[in-house]
Amino acid sequence: MIQSQEKPDRVLVRISDLTVQKAGEVVWVRARVHTSRAKGKQCFLVLRQQQFNVQALVAVGDHASKQMVKFAANINKESIVDVEGVVRKVNQKIGSCTQQDVELHVQKIYVISSAEPRLPLQLDDAVRPEVEGEEEGRATVNQDTRLDNRVIDLRTSTSQAIFRLQSGICHLFRETLTNKGFVEIQTPKIISAASEGGANVFTVSYFKNNAYLAQSPQLYKQMCICADFEKVFCIGPVFRAEDSNTHRHLTEFVGLDIEMAFNYHYHEVVEEIADTLVQIFKGLQKRFQTEIQTVNKQFPCEPFKFLEPTLRLEYCEALAMLREAGIEMGDEEDLSTPNEKLLGRLVKEKYDTDFYILDKYPLAVRPFYTMPDPRNPKQSNSYDMFMRGEEILSGAQRIHDPQLLTERALHHGIDLEKIKAYIDSFRFGAPPHAGGGIGLERVTMLFLGLHNVRQTSMFPRDPKRLTP
Amino acid sequence: MIQSQEKPDRVLVRISDLTVQKAGEVVWVRARVHTSRAKGKQCFLVLRQQQFNVQALVAVGDHASKQMVKFAANINKESIVDVEGVVRKVNQKIGSCTQQDVELHVQKIYVISSAEPRLPLQLDDAVRPEVEGEEEGRATVNQDTRLDNRVIDLRTSTSQAIFRLQSGICHLFRETLTNKGFVEIQTPKIISAASEGGANVFTVSYFKNNAYLAQSPQLYKQMCICADFEKVFCIGPVFRAEDSNTHRHLTEFVGLDIEMAFNYHYHEVVEEIADTLVQIFKGLQKRFQTEIQTVNKQFPCEPFKFLEPTLRLEYCEALAMLREAGIEMGDEEDLSTPNEKLLGRLVKEKYDTDFYILDKYPLAVRPFYTMPDPRNPKQSNSYDMFMRGEEILSGAQRIHDPQLLTERALHHGIDLEKIKAYIDSFRFGAPPHAGGGIGLERVTMLFLGLHNVRQTSMFPRDPKRLTP
Repeated sequence: MIQSQEKPDRVLVRISDLTVQKAGEVVWVRARVHTSRAKGKQCFLVLRQQQFNVQALVAVGDHASKQMVKFAANINKESIVDVEGVVRKVNQKIGSCTQQDVELHVQKIYVISSAEPRLPLQLDDAVRPEVEGEEEGRATVNQDTRLDNRVIDLRTSTSQAIFRLQSGICHLFRETLTNKGFVEIQTPKIISAASEGGANVFTVSYFKNNAYLAQSPQLYKQMCICADFEKVFCIGPVFRAEDSNTHRHLTEFVGLDIEMAFNYHYHEVVEEIADTLVQIFKGLQKRFQTEIQTVNKQFPCEPFKFLEPTLRLEYCEALAMLREAGIEMGDEEDLSTPNEKLLGRLVKEKYDTDFYILDKYPLAVRPFYTMPDPRNPKQSNSYDMFMRGEEILSGAQRIHDPQLLTERALHHGIDLEKIKAYIDSFRFGAPPHAGGGIGLERVTMLFLGLHNVRQTSMFPRDPKRLTP
Repeated sequence: MIQSQEKPDRVLVRISDLTVQKAGEVVWVRARVHTSRAKGKQCFLVLRQQQFNVQALVAVGDHASKQMVKFAANINKESIVDVEGVVRKVNQKIGSCTQQDVELHVQKIYVISSAEPRLPLQLDDAVRPEVEGEEEGRATVNQDTRLDNRVIDLRTSTSQAIFRLQSGICHLFRETLTNKGFVEIQTPKIISAASEGGANVFTVSYFKNNAYLAQSPQLYKQMCICADFEKVFCIGPVFRAEDSNTHRHLTEFVGLDIEMAFNYHYHEVVEEIADTLVQIFKGLQKRFQTEIQTVNKQFPCEPFKFLEPTLRLEYCEALAMLREAGIEMGDEEDLSTPNEKLLGRLVKEKYDTDFYILDKYPLAVRPFYTMPDPRNPKQSNSYDMFMRGEEILSGAQRIHDPQLLTERALHHGIDLEKIKAYIDSFRFGAPPHAGGGIGLERVTMLFLGLHNVRQTSMFPRDPKRLTP
C-alpha cells in the first residue's frame, strides 16, 4: 500500500506514449489489469489507462521466473499494478489494443491496489452495443447494475467520453459567456420560501425551522440584474421534488443559467442564448470528436445538426405544422411530450436542424412572472429551446415592474405574502431583462443522441434512486 | 415600461466611453440617477452605470422646457433613465465623477424604471470607510441593513468589485486546473446517508424518506478517482448545519474542490494545490488590480504576500513556534482559532508570507479516512492551508485500502453499515490519492483583507439568516 513512505525518482510512462519510438526502452507503467490470460510459460496481460491499453507479456526467462508468471496470471482483473518492462515492436498489429504496434516485455510487476476477484460487471460487457448483445446473444449490462456499481461503470471508454464531453459543455458555456462580458455568480440553494407557490419543492430542516431547496436560481439571477451586474450566469444544482419516473427527469440536475438586462427587446437575449448554445455545439464538434466517436461506437447516432442563425419559430407556426400533421390542439394549449417530439421531427424534415427556438408561448401556460406580449394579450414574451425534439431550455422576459408583477401573481392565485421579497426586489429601479435555464444532463444526452438522462448524470437522483 | 414592443435602431453608449473624443456628439445613455440637484432653471444629475458615472445637465433653453427641468429634478434616485444629450468638454474637472472631462447636456429624458422615493440605504453611505464614519460623524451602513437590502448594497462600487473578483477566483481556479489536465465533475448534493457519522448535517424530506445535504463532495470526488478520472475538480455548494455564529462560518458556502491520484507521495498533490492557489493570487493581482484598489478604498489593507514555492511547515514546527511565543499546547492538540491567528502572525514575521501550508497534522484530530503517517503513527498525511492566519483549505491523503479504512472507522466508533457504500468504492482497485476543499468566500475575504465572510457571499446563509 502506498502510504507516501518515499519519493522515488521513478518516472511513470503513459500508455498512450508507448509507441514504436520507444522500442527498446525500459519503462515503468502504472495501469489496471484489464484482462489476463496464462498460456504455458507465458502470461499475456492487457494493461489499461482510461481509454488506452497495451499488451504486456510475462514470460519465463532472464527477467521472469515461473513464480512470477504464476503471480501475474493470478492478479485479479481491475487491480492496479506497477510494471517495469521493455517496449518491443510487434510484427503483427495487436487489434484488441489501442497501442497496436508495441507490447511490453515485463521484468517486474507489483500490485499497487488489488481488486476483489468477483466484479459486479464486466467492462467489455458494459461497452457492448445493445444490438450486438441482442443479435449475437452476448451479455450487456442493464442500467441499474451500472448505476449500482457506478465506480466500475464510469471506467468504460463510453462513460469516460460522456463525462469528458460534459466537462467540455460547462467549459464552453463559461468561455462563451465570459467573452460576451457576463459575470459568474453563486446563488444560494437553501431558501426561506418556495417562490412559485410551493409545489414540487424539497423541505429542509433548518435548525428549528423549515427551509426549502431552490428549484432554480432565477430569483437570485434577477436580483443580480437589479443590482446592476447586467449579464450574469451560474452553474449549479437545481432541485425538483417531482415524482416523475421518465427518461428525462431527475430530482437533482445541473442548471446552466443565464440572465441579462436588455435595451429594447427580449430577442437581444434570445439571440445571445442561442448563440451560446451554437458555440457549445461547434466547440464540442471541434474539440471532442474522439469522445463523440467513442460514444457512437456503443450508441450509434446521426451527427447533431444546427443552423446559423438559429431557427426561431413562433408558437402559432408550430401549431399550424402540428395541425397539418393531423394533431388537434387548442390555441392556448401547451405542448405534450409526444407533440414536442413530433414537432421536432417535422422541423427536422422541413428545416434540417436538430436545434431550434420556439417563441411566443401562450401566456396561460407560463409562470406568473412572464411578460405578456404587448401586441397580443394571449401570448407572452417567452420561449423554449429544443434539441432533437426535446426541451432543453425554458426562458422569458420577466416582468420587471412591481405593479404588473403583483397583478399577474394575483391572477395566478399566488399568496402575495410568500413572494413579497421577490416583488420588493423590483421597487428600486429594475432594468428590463430576460433569461433562461439549461439542463446540463439533457444537453449532453441529446447532443450525443443518448436515450436516458441517467447516462449523463454521474450519480443520478430520481424518486427511486439516492445512491451511490 | 419596456415590454419589447419594438426594436428601435438606437445605440446606447456606455458611460465609460464618454470622453473628450466624443465631444460635440449626440448620444443616448441608459443609466441610474445617482443624485439629482435642482438649481433655478437648471438640474444637475449624476448618472451611474456600475462603477462609472457622469454629470448631466438639464437646463431651460432650446431643448428643455421649464417642465422638463422640473420633471428631471423630481426623478427618484436609483431610477433608470434613457437620456439623449450632447457630450460637452468641461473647463474644470468634475472631481465627483469618474468621467471628469465631459458632461452631458440633456435634450430628452425618459424614465425606464422608477425607484420608490425612500431608499432603505444610501449608496454613498454604503461605500464610506468606517474610520471616516467614526471620525467625521458621517453615516455608514451596518451589515444587517446591507444584507436585508442586498439588491441595493450590491450596486456599490465595493460590492461590484468584490463579486467581480470572486468570479475571477473561480475562473482562475478552473483555468489553472484545466491546464494541468484536471476534469470538471458534478457531484450530487442530496445524499442518502451522512458520511461522517451524521453531525452537522441538514435533513431533507425526500418523498416518503429522509435524505441529507452533502457536507462536502469528497466521497464523489474519490469515486471519480476510483473510476480512473485521475484528476478532478468541482465547484459547488457545501452545506454545514453548524450553529456557529462567527465572522467566518456560513451554513452554505461554495467549495472549490480538488482530488487527484498520485504516484508515490501525497506531496505531489499538495504541490499542485498550492501552485493552483498561487496562480489564483497572481492572476488576481494581475487582472483585478482595479477591483482590489476599489475595495481597498473602503477597507484599507496590505497587499497579499506569498512565496514561490509555497512555504510548507510541519505541525511540530508550528507547535515549536507557538511554544516559543508562550503558548502551552499538547503534541496532539488541534489549533484553536486564536492560536491559528497567532501562528499566522509569527509566520508572517519570520517568513514574510500571508500564505502557507501546515503539513502532518496529529492523526488524532483528523477524520477517520485520513492516511496515517507511515513513519510516525501519531502523525498523518494531512494538511491545512492558511491565508492571513485563517484556514482556507483542509486536505489529506485518503486511505484507499478498504481494510485499513475499516479499521480506522472502527477506531473512531463509526457505524460501518452507514459507510458501507463508501468503503465498497475501494474494493475494485483504487489508486493512492489526496485532495482538499477550499472555501471560496474565505479566499475572497482573506485575499482582500475583509473581516466577515458575509461580505463575500452574495446572499449569505447562517443560523439566523435565510433571506433574501
